[in-house]
Amino acid sequence: MQSNATVSTLFLSAPEMAELVRRKGLPNCLAGIADNIHHDFLRWQAFDKSARVANHSQDGVIELMPISDDSHYSFKYVNGHPSNTRIGLSTVMAFGVLADVATGSPQLLSELTLTTALRTAAMSAVAAKALARPDSRVMALIGNGAQSEFQALAFQHLLGIEELRLFDVDPAATVKLVANLEGSGLKLTRCASTAEAVRGADIVTTVTADKTNATILTPEMVEPGMHVNAVGGDCPGKTELHAEVLRAGSVFVEYTPQTRIEGDIQQLPADFEVTELWEVLAGRKPGRAGREQVTVFDSVGFALEDFSALRFVRDAAAELGVGERIALIPQLADPKNLFGLLRRPASPRDAARLLEASPSLA
Amino acid sequence: MQSNATVSTLFLSAPEMAELVRRKGLPNCLAGIADNIHHDFLRWQAFDKSARVANHSQDGVIELMPISDDSHYSFKYVNGHPSNTRIGLSTVMAFGVLADVATGSPQLLSELTLTTALRTAAMSAVAAKALARPDSRVMALIGNGAQSEFQALAFQHLLGIEELRLFDVDPAATVKLVANLEGSGLKLTRCASTAEAVRGADIVTTVTADKTNATILTPEMVEPGMHVNAVGGDCPGKTELHAEVLRAGSVFVEYTPQTRIEGDIQQLPADFEVTELWEVLAGRKPGRAGREQVTVFDSVGFALEDFSALRFVRDAAAELGVGERIALIPQLADPKNLFGLLRRPASPRDAARLLEASPSLA
Repeated sequence: MQSNATVSTLFLSAPEMAELVRRKGLPNCLAGIADNIHHDFLRWQAFDKSARVANHSQDGVIELMPISDDSHYSFKYVNGHPSNTRIGLSTVMAFGVLADVATGSPQLLSELTLTTALRTAAMSAVAAKALARPDSRVMALIGNGAQSEFQALAFQHLLGIEELRLFDVDPAATVKLVANLEGSGLKLTRCASTAEAVRGADIVTTVTADKTNATILTPEMVEPGMHVNAVGGDCPGKTELHAEVLRAGSVFVEYTPQTRIEGDIQQLPADFEVTELWEVLAGRKPGRAGREQVTVFDSVGFALEDFSALRFVRDAAAELGVGERIALIPQLADPKNLFGLLRRPASPRDAARLLEASPSLA
Repeated sequence: MQSNATVSTLFLSAPEMAELVRRKGLPNCLAGIADNIHHDFLRWQAFDKSARVANHSQDGVIELMPISDDSHYSFKYVNGHPSNTRIGLSTVMAFGVLADVATGSPQLLSELTLTTALRTAAMSAVAAKALARPDSRVMALIGNGAQSEFQALAFQHLLGIEELRLFDVDPAATVKLVANLEGSGLKLTRCASTAEAVRGADIVTTVTADKTNATILTPEMVEPGMHVNAVGGDCPGKTELHAEVLRAGSVFVEYTPQTRIEGDIQQLPADFEVTELWEVLAGRKPGRAGREQVTVFDSVGFALEDFSALRFVRDAAAELGVGERIALIPQLADPKNLFGLLRRPASPRDAARLLEASPSLA
């Protein structure tokens, strides 16, 4: 009864992912990933969810983020090492796998460093669409590092943001962001402080990298009706918002058990009231209560967003013919004969010969 | 202060791993991995350990197994789908990564389907060396599937086993095993039942695949002085030993929190006394108490064994020049400018050009 099933894994390298995004267009990728995220959040109960598994070290953290539904499994490997940039490496590097639940076969191995920036921005936009005032046009962008352009363009294309007010403790970061967004159509204003950038903004996005309990945003900066998109506080000991900013508004999270540990709400008691975003998207709980309410999306990044993104890039890679097949899993003529792999040359041609010779497959 | 650090990940495919094992020789690989496992178990306290993260589905399970010390991090992805063989796929497929703790960079991505069979057998041999009677020469091998040849050869080369007594409910599995071990120098005896195979054996290895609470080994089969190497009971709901076999001997485990969930001792109360093997290897706890004692190694497979194996294959690949470099992580001229990846072609040549053009690196 054996058929000749094989496991062929598509590999998308970092250069190939950059090619994929350039060819599809960044706005299309952001929109496509946001659609998948929205759709998957509506199926929240269908997923086997867990808080990510973190190995902490002196200089950073390495995490695994698994999730599955009845048909697909995904995980992401991601590190966070803020001091990496000093030696020319990225703070965050990532890759991940999409697998078939029925057999456990890995179908796609993909870079996720670039993709994580896209999916984080797409997630922020999905949340802001549900929580920010619909007429939001001005966004303060605090922290102008590796993630900032993606946030900017997601809010431009998916929310209708027209103007960005920029601040970073490192002026070179803002110069880089302004250069990268030249020609985007966004009005860009460089500000001298967080307070100046935030003044009059409809949405405030914080995406800073320092692994400290910082208070980037303090209560006196927050104006009625603002939506705070807090992206950078995503690790134990790494927060961005003053506790009173959280208390001043309604706080929305991805997956409560993980956000209690990693989000800005790690500063608050475990019974501090939060709403899971999927409940708002599904119409089960209210989002913004009125024009004057302050809403806070305490984003930490959840495995489901990578699941959504991996399915998007899988489909886009198939459409564009990007990526290459790799032999991550051995191809065996008889799956019960793993040892046979060692007795014969393992080239595909030999595997075919072996197959013909195997009486169990006749 | 930026240097031009890059992340280059070595990829070892399944055919390349088979080549590596053939060129180094299987006995050398088993010995090298066993040495690494022994050495790493002696440094037990140096590791950040956790029970593996499992996503269970109707037909199987997908697991992630992370571990780290101060310098290296590793994880393994592994599935268990017993019905896979019906469609020509392996029950167990695996791959894994070895990464640098200081930066989070993935250094090695490797197939681990074949390697898992090697490291499981090497682990069994390390345990048996500490627990079995030193004059053991005869081993019963119950379950003659994909893992069995590796167990046979590890016990031949690392323990001095000379004779195997074989049984499998599927006679074709035994025929395959006998064919594969032709010329090994082992004396092979096919038996009609587990009881017949076990009779008079010094060591009993159970490595069956069914995901059920089976009782492959029952109390009346167990003779004084036997060492039981129980490999196949490694998942909730998947056991091989009758509970009284566990109670009849001293039980040794890899990592207690994981074995309580996955091992044969899942049948017993949470306070059933077990000894962690590392304590025996380190001389902190006694192993075998005398010639008449029954010892049981309730093996489930622990992340540390993959860590040990990954370092072995990394070193062997470097020695033999096997494997290829892949661009799992983007190479950025400025690590704070991830967006820059999208603005320019991402070929290595272009990356080099970009590097020259970047004033921040001047």
